[in-house]
Amino acid sequence: MKAERLEEFDCIFNPGAVAVIGASQGDDFTAALMSTKLRENLFLVNPKYKEILGKKCHASILDIKDEIDYVVIAVPASLVPKVLGECIEKGVKAAHIFSAGFSETGLDERVRLENEVKEVAEGKIKLIGPNCMGIYCPKSGLSFSKNSSPEEGPVGVVSQSGTFAILFAMDGKIKNVTFSKVISYGNAIDLDCPDFLEYLSDDPETKIIALYIEGTTNGKRLKSALDKATRKKPVVALKGGITKQGSRAASSHTASLAGSPEIWSSLFKQTGVVQVENFDELADTILAFTCSPPPQGKGVSIITSSGGFSVTETDSCVKVGLEVPQLEKKTIAELRKILPAAGTSIGNPLDAWPMYYNVSGMPGTISDVIKLIALDKNIHALIVHLEEVRYMAQVLGNTTEYHLKELISILIDGCEHTRDKVGKPVMICIPLDAYSEKEDERRYCLMVKKAFTSQRFPVYSSIDASINALSNLYKYNKRFHNE
Amino acid sequence: MKAERLEEFDCIFNPGAVAVIGASQGDDFTAALMSTKLRENLFLVNPKYKEILGKKCHASILDIKDEIDYVVIAVPASLVPKVLGECIEKGVKAAHIFSAGFSETGLDERVRLENEVKEVAEGKIKLIGPNCMGIYCPKSGLSFSKNSSPEEGPVGVVSQSGTFAILFAMDGKIKNVTFSKVISYGNAIDLDCPDFLEYLSDDPETKIIALYIEGTTNGKRLKSALDKATRKKPVVALKGGITKQGSRAASSHTASLAGSPEIWSSLFKQTGVVQVENFDELADTILAFTCSPPPQGKGVSIITSSGGFSVTETDSCVKVGLEVPQLEKKTIAELRKILPAAGTSIGNPLDAWPMYYNVSGMPGTISDVIKLIALDKNIHALIVHLEEVRYMAQVLGNTTEYHLKELISILIDGCEHTRDKVGKPVMICIPLDAYSEKEDERRYCLMVKKAFTSQRFPVYSSIDASINALSNLYKYNKRFHNE
Repeated sequence: MKAERLEEFDCIFNPGAVAVIGASQGDDFTAALMSTKLRENLFLVNPKYKEILGKKCHASILDIKDEIDYVVIAVPASLVPKVLGECIEKGVKAAHIFSAGFSETGLDERVRLENEVKEVAEGKIKLIGPNCMGIYCPKSGLSFSKNSSPEEGPVGVVSQSGTFAILFAMDGKIKNVTFSKVISYGNAIDLDCPDFLEYLSDDPETKIIALYIEGTTNGKRLKSALDKATRKKPVVALKGGITKQGSRAASSHTASLAGSPEIWSSLFKQTGVVQVENFDELADTILAFTCSPPPQGKGVSIITSSGGFSVTETDSCVKVGLEVPQLEKKTIAELRKILPAAGTSIGNPLDAWPMYYNVSGMPGTISDVIKLIALDKNIHALIVHLEEVRYMAQVLGNTTEYHLKELISILIDGCEHTRDKVGKPVMICIPLDAYSEKEDERRYCLMVKKAFTSQRFPVYSSIDASINALSNLYKYNKRFHNE
Repeated sequence: MKAERLEEFDCIFNPGAVAVIGASQGDDFTAALMSTKLRENLFLVNPKYKEILGKKCHASILDIKDEIDYVVIAVPASLVPKVLGECIEKGVKAAHIFSAGFSETGLDERVRLENEVKEVAEGKIKLIGPNCMGIYCPKSGLSFSKNSSPEEGPVGVVSQSGTFAILFAMDGKIKNVTFSKVISYGNAIDLDCPDFLEYLSDDPETKIIALYIEGTTNGKRLKSALDKATRKKPVVALKGGITKQGSRAASSHTASLAGSPEIWSSLFKQTGVVQVENFDELADTILAFTCSPPPQGKGVSIITSSGGFSVTETDSCVKVGLEVPQLEKKTIAELRKILPAAGTSIGNPLDAWPMYYNVSGMPGTISDVIKLIALDKNIHALIVHLEEVRYMAQVLGNTTEYHLKELISILIDGCEHTRDKVGKPVMICIPLDAYSEKEDERRYCLMVKKAFTSQRFPVYSSIDASINALSNLYKYNKRFHNE
């Protein structure tokens, strides 16, 4: 069964040859596919051109001699039935219909057009879409954006929104997240969310599933697909249209029937799906799942250099169901031996700026502190909030870069020990405003960020992002591993 | 009364001469004050040095011949009583005690030391602190960070956290927020939050008050100060230590007694203070208050280029108490005349990418669209979500910059018309990841952001930030202007 499904979908994820119908100089699909390993097995179709980007362009798919497994259809909506008929005649196995302008417009004649497409295809060709971006699969080279990475990875994405699929593919690099398959499925007139979920459940290359869904026509099948998926791997989901007005917006986006918030929350709860509130939280949570061991309890240690943040971060943790418990007495006693009292707060949260300036090898480095806290039995996860990086240049002037290099190696020593030896997750937060124009600040923050991502730590630019992601990791583990 | 209070605090906000006691080559205060107009009236004290940054350094404040109004005390905690005694002898009117290591440590001998400071000062000198950053006042030149702007502005900040005061002063420039006074008051053994609130209420240069508070020893006085302030100007507040564990963290930060979340929420509700959840929301909301007319109702129009975001943004609006209502039929009819059906969703949210590429002067520009929506009677505020900026370089290649310039002028025409002629607020969101290394993307986003901030629009890099800020603006207006 498992092997069969994987084979059945091979024409979609690992096609031998691919054609873009409606190719043009500027279209995203041609540009994207010309930049991947599929380039040699790519065929372009458009009667208007003889050649695009140096590649021959055919007037019709029927003019191509080679076998074609998979096509991208990017022609005006009204031409889709005809083009699809030709693909079937040619023996194409799967078609991704990029074209929009169907039932999502709410216009009667467009709904009829969509039904016509359905009838033409029925039983003869697999369809993805219409009104979607299709497939990004770095292993085979399928892609919808020339900015997507060729690197393969553990995350499978099923998204009813094209934008969200594009954002994952484009911004994965920023966060250090890589993908097995990213699927944008739009109006879903043939293959629907449950089909892709079942495929990704079976797919050995997918370790974590991210889902964006607006609605479904078959709740039972969706539930069974989610059940199956969550038994095998974590599923993190954003439901779009969870409010009445959002649901109205969903119906003019993908013609989805959205259902009540309670039904969806209970569906996710029953199946063990981690539900998130918005796209940023979806991306942030996926990052945490790709590179952190799960916390075995809700006790968080916050390590910072700001009293104000130590208070508000604690509040934020507690609000999302985590705890910031007191450290064991013996931990505090050990910490007091190596950290000064004035200007610090030794406990949990720990607020002690001097350790960020101690790279001397003398006791009281941040590595010593982290290792002590990692062993505390009240603590199941650490959030290291590197606010201090922003101020270092002011304090250290032109010795900043040297100092930071030393500090980074000390920091990573402590964090790796915690994650790899003690087995507790460490979330890294390096706050930075997206619109900051202080070039030094940006450069130093980026330097620290890259050092951590290269060691596969989850790094966030916002405090609440790191807290929400950790909380989702905790909730998942509690559900499936009975804390 | 009002004039008296302003005069009484003149020695704090507009001192004639200032001394830093415990000055050194690297201390923040000396560096900050040397960079402002106070430089000429600045005196340095430290027996260890003869000269700092080219300025004479005195062994004791008693060695200075000039009158000194205000001192910054940055010596080890144990020396504070002695230094303070000398300041009183010298006739100094106000002292900011930066030094930490008092009651916030929780150590008995440190609590005793704090009491000693209190006794020495009582009735003889005004105290700010200890354990705080003191005052930033661009008008007089007082400052605690050499990165703070000399520009004066409408925002007064009262913060029990030094970090948050620094972040406002340092990052104001990024968001285009300027300040009348920023006050970091720490352990508050003499002047406390209500004193500063009353001062800022009376201060004609302060139009909006931002408050970060962890606790108070006099709830009645705080309530009366908040009451007085909110009757005169908007007050936006973050309460630190709103959870039990957060409150424990607050007590080791500023030795505050934090009280229950319900007490604080009801205090804020009764007095009409806008309560926010975290520091980012505080900063984002202050930005909205500085440059937006208030919305006269909860109806929001979302203008975007993504179907997925149009759904999830609507959900986010509804979750925080706003609405995304349908547009009037006549508005939709007008919009349909100028926008194509395929790949767009014409309504609210409005998702129509073609308008971002129309700079031709033909109908269907984003300005036409915004002006039509601005007149809709269901709509009281607009969120313009410029997601498309990130993709433009891919579509337009090296004509991007030219195109963006045209687009910006069209966009701003529509937004200014909406804000200045129709009187409805317009929030601008240009999503950008802080750690994005795509230099083109950053440059283009920054170009658009700067164009909008220069016209005094509130710009956000995250969607939920813009929605939360707008919701707070709405709540304030509803409370005080009885929607």
